[in-house]
Amino acid sequence: MNRIITISREFGSGGRTVAMEAAKILGIPCYDKELIEKTADESGFAKEYIKERGEYAESGSWFSNALAARDQYGRTNQDQLFTVQSRIITELAEKESCVIIGRCADYILQDKADLLKVFIYSDMKFRAERIVRLYGEKEDSPEKRLRDKDKRRAAYYSIYTDLKWGDMRNYDITLNSARVGIERCAEIIAKLY
Amino acid sequence: MNRIITISREFGSGGRTVAMEAAKILGIPCYDKELIEKTADESGFAKEYIKERGEYAESGSWFSNALAARDQYGRTNQDQLFTVQSRIITELAEKESCVIIGRCADYILQDKADLLKVFIYSDMKFRAERIVRLYGEKEDSPEKRLRDKDKRRAAYYSIYTDLKWGDMRNYDITLNSARVGIERCAEIIAKLY
Repeated sequence: MNRIITISREFGSGGRTVAMEAAKILGIPCYDKELIEKTADESGFAKEYIKERGEYAESGSWFSNALAARDQYGRTNQDQLFTVQSRIITELAEKESCVIIGRCADYILQDKADLLKVFIYSDMKFRAERIVRLYGEKEDSPEKRLRDKDKRRAAYYSIYTDLKWGDMRNYDITLNSARVGIERCAEIIAKLY
Repeated sequence: MNRIITISREFGSGGRTVAMEAAKILGIPCYDKELIEKTADESGFAKEYIKERGEYAESGSWFSNALAARDQYGRTNQDQLFTVQSRIITELAEKESCVIIGRCADYILQDKADLLKVFIYSDMKFRAERIVRLYGEKEDSPEKRLRDKDKRRAAYYSIYTDLKWGDMRNYDITLNSARVGIERCAEIIAKLY
């Protein structure tokens, strides 16, 4: 079994940067955007759709989700996307050691790889400043954008796993990036690997 | 402000050993039993009582807690114990850098010291094996003993703080001691300090 690092993260916490830095230190690949591209190639879904729905439940009510269009097997588009994404994640993990960002990889790979499961989070203030710096101001306040993203990521995770997103007991280590520092998070993960 | 490491931990996770090892690496004192002794000296409470009630809510219902004997200010014995313990923890933190185990020190010291807040946890199996090895078999199964301890520690924390015990967002780093290893936990904490 390959040794795989899965990095789950709160939006705006810098978890993606931590993942890429850790992979760089270890000289192994880090999958995030590449996953979206592979999924697009294999599924025919548009990249924008995958980016939006490959980690987030639909904004809107559970009721509207329940009414979403389904195929002849009762699966929504998002279910099909999850199936393709899971297969790609499994194939990557079987091929080589790597870092995989988000997308329930911790759950998908649980018996298929030797996992180091990481969760990166931080306080609202750090994240709000960070997303404004990276993605600019939007109509909604950064706090509202973060709460919305958190809620939809947690909902997505709970639809496809039987675990609670952001419960430390699902992880081997959880790190507050605002307090520990992004670079130090990456160093600790690389050291633990 | 002194730099203080607070270590909260699940019963049986080896958090106490992690704390002592980290303190040893750093050459700073680690307070656990010493805290009980100091509290006994200053409060007149028996050591056994402090050990039992300085971190655990009473077993039994909330209702029976609500009916507990109170002094003329409406405080239970446990409230008085918390007050003495808090003062001792604050004095220790003001005197020198150190590691403090449990006892809501993370909450008590939040604006009084430069804190590194750690939580150590691990899966039921690891903890069950560990408590049987350390404390022997008892009438109740190790799982039941652990669940009871967890519940009472969480209840104690929630009585005296406005936070949820074991929510990673209250900590700078949380470590699964079964997965990371007790020695490695101590090394990471010492390195982060």
